[in-house]
Amino acid sequence: MRRSQRIVAITKALVEQPYRVFQLREFAELFNSAKSTISEDIAIIKETLLELNNGRIETLHGVSGGVRYVPYVSSSELHRRVNNLAKKLSEPKRILPGGFIYLNDLVDSPVSLAEIGEIFAQKFSDKDPEYTVTVETSGIPIALMTARALNLPLVVVSRQSRLTEGPVLTMNYLSGSSRRLETMSLSRRALPPHAKVLIIDDFMKAGGTLRGLVELMDEFECEVVGKGVLIDTAEPKEKLIDGYLSLIRIDEIDEAKQKIVAKPADWIS
Amino acid sequence: MRRSQRIVAITKALVEQPYRVFQLREFAELFNSAKSTISEDIAIIKETLLELNNGRIETLHGVSGGVRYVPYVSSSELHRRVNNLAKKLSEPKRILPGGFIYLNDLVDSPVSLAEIGEIFAQKFSDKDPEYTVTVETSGIPIALMTARALNLPLVVVSRQSRLTEGPVLTMNYLSGSSRRLETMSLSRRALPPHAKVLIIDDFMKAGGTLRGLVELMDEFECEVVGKGVLIDTAEPKEKLIDGYLSLIRIDEIDEAKQKIVAKPADWIS
Repeated sequence: MRRSQRIVAITKALVEQPYRVFQLREFAELFNSAKSTISEDIAIIKETLLELNNGRIETLHGVSGGVRYVPYVSSSELHRRVNNLAKKLSEPKRILPGGFIYLNDLVDSPVSLAEIGEIFAQKFSDKDPEYTVTVETSGIPIALMTARALNLPLVVVSRQSRLTEGPVLTMNYLSGSSRRLETMSLSRRALPPHAKVLIIDDFMKAGGTLRGLVELMDEFECEVVGKGVLIDTAEPKEKLIDGYLSLIRIDEIDEAKQKIVAKPADWIS
Repeated sequence: MRRSQRIVAITKALVEQPYRVFQLREFAELFNSAKSTISEDIAIIKETLLELNNGRIETLHGVSGGVRYVPYVSSSELHRRVNNLAKKLSEPKRILPGGFIYLNDLVDSPVSLAEIGEIFAQKFSDKDPEYTVTVETSGIPIALMTARALNLPLVVVSRQSRLTEGPVLTMNYLSGSSRRLETMSLSRRALPPHAKVLIIDDFMKAGGTLRGLVELMDEFECEVVGKGVLIDTAEPKEKLIDGYLSLIRIDEIDEAKQKIVAKPADWIS
């Protein structure tokens, strides 16, 4: 194989599986090339992505050494992505009776979901999470795309326990906004003790669900190393949880005036 | 930029967004190169993927012309993927009291989910689906990865309607195996009439849920162009639906003997 062909194949393999470590030997065997040749190929890939400011190739040394692709979202790209979402979220047609917002189509495209997942991945990768955890239903796509960008397994907490889950740990909690009793449960098999978990959800108001998830992780003796939500709301000001990262904040929903005010979170603007 | 660098950047862009059409002009402007140069770059990428039997580059002519990356799963790779899953599914520790099977960890890794999504994408791409539809909860990750491989929006049908969905169409149906009354609902806004939809779910026994989904699509005046499930069961023999594609079949679950017999679907072996 020529250099340009090896570069196609290596770029594809790396980019398709972010954070997966590939050993130079794997590529050398596949292309029947010397490891030094593969090293040169990878140097070209690395340099190009740096120049484009569009992803990183990291070299890991030691026994489990090799190279891996790490998505990189530049500051201008972050602004573009989040501003687009905030704009889409501000469309008046989203307002439903009772001041609720229709969100289902906000991130229904795999491309937008992947864009969001990469942002969360970038913000939390230094905490070395081992699992991505979410609660059904609407947070699953974002959590899965975050898990994909970090190459982590996805764990989905249920709203009600099912026969197909075996022994479960169930937790009752009060939803923050409506003070309604809610339940969540997770199979005992889903997480090993002392795992580091990243919690991802799509929407947060008072934070009751997020707090419930944190307490559930506590029961599993897992360590929550990060909490990310796509959207939070300015009201209520007092949240039941702190230390979470949101991408977009809804400042105001005015049903009478058919107006939604949403903007990128403070840390972004 | 040198050829090898352009090849890195173009490969990455194409592979990251399967089925998205890129115009040669986009790349030509980005790299400040002639369209003929970009054409040559793409020819190298196309030829390499063909040689590796690992994805295709398609050229589309006409007004919306351009190039796109289409995942390709070779026959040997299909066997490897499905056999791995069938083997994992046959692990006796999955048997739960009552003969249920613990499936949550079967496809919790984004890499396996992407592998499954690519298989469904390949089997149904010629039907030109416009939406991927699933029902909450456990089918969502597979459906999303199928949607990603085809660059389609994901639509998730709910088990119960929510205030955040606006006007919904609700459907009651009998679950095939337990003859229990079940409900599913979908926001009126979720699908336009006459859309072509691909239904994806993770598990099917008698097919009551799948049939419910098909009937719901009927109410939306949508055309179901494909139905894929990851796992189906040999029993009951009489299914409530036909024309679906499964990847793995469970032939037997013997709780007393702690035995699960699962194997690739007939069309694969």
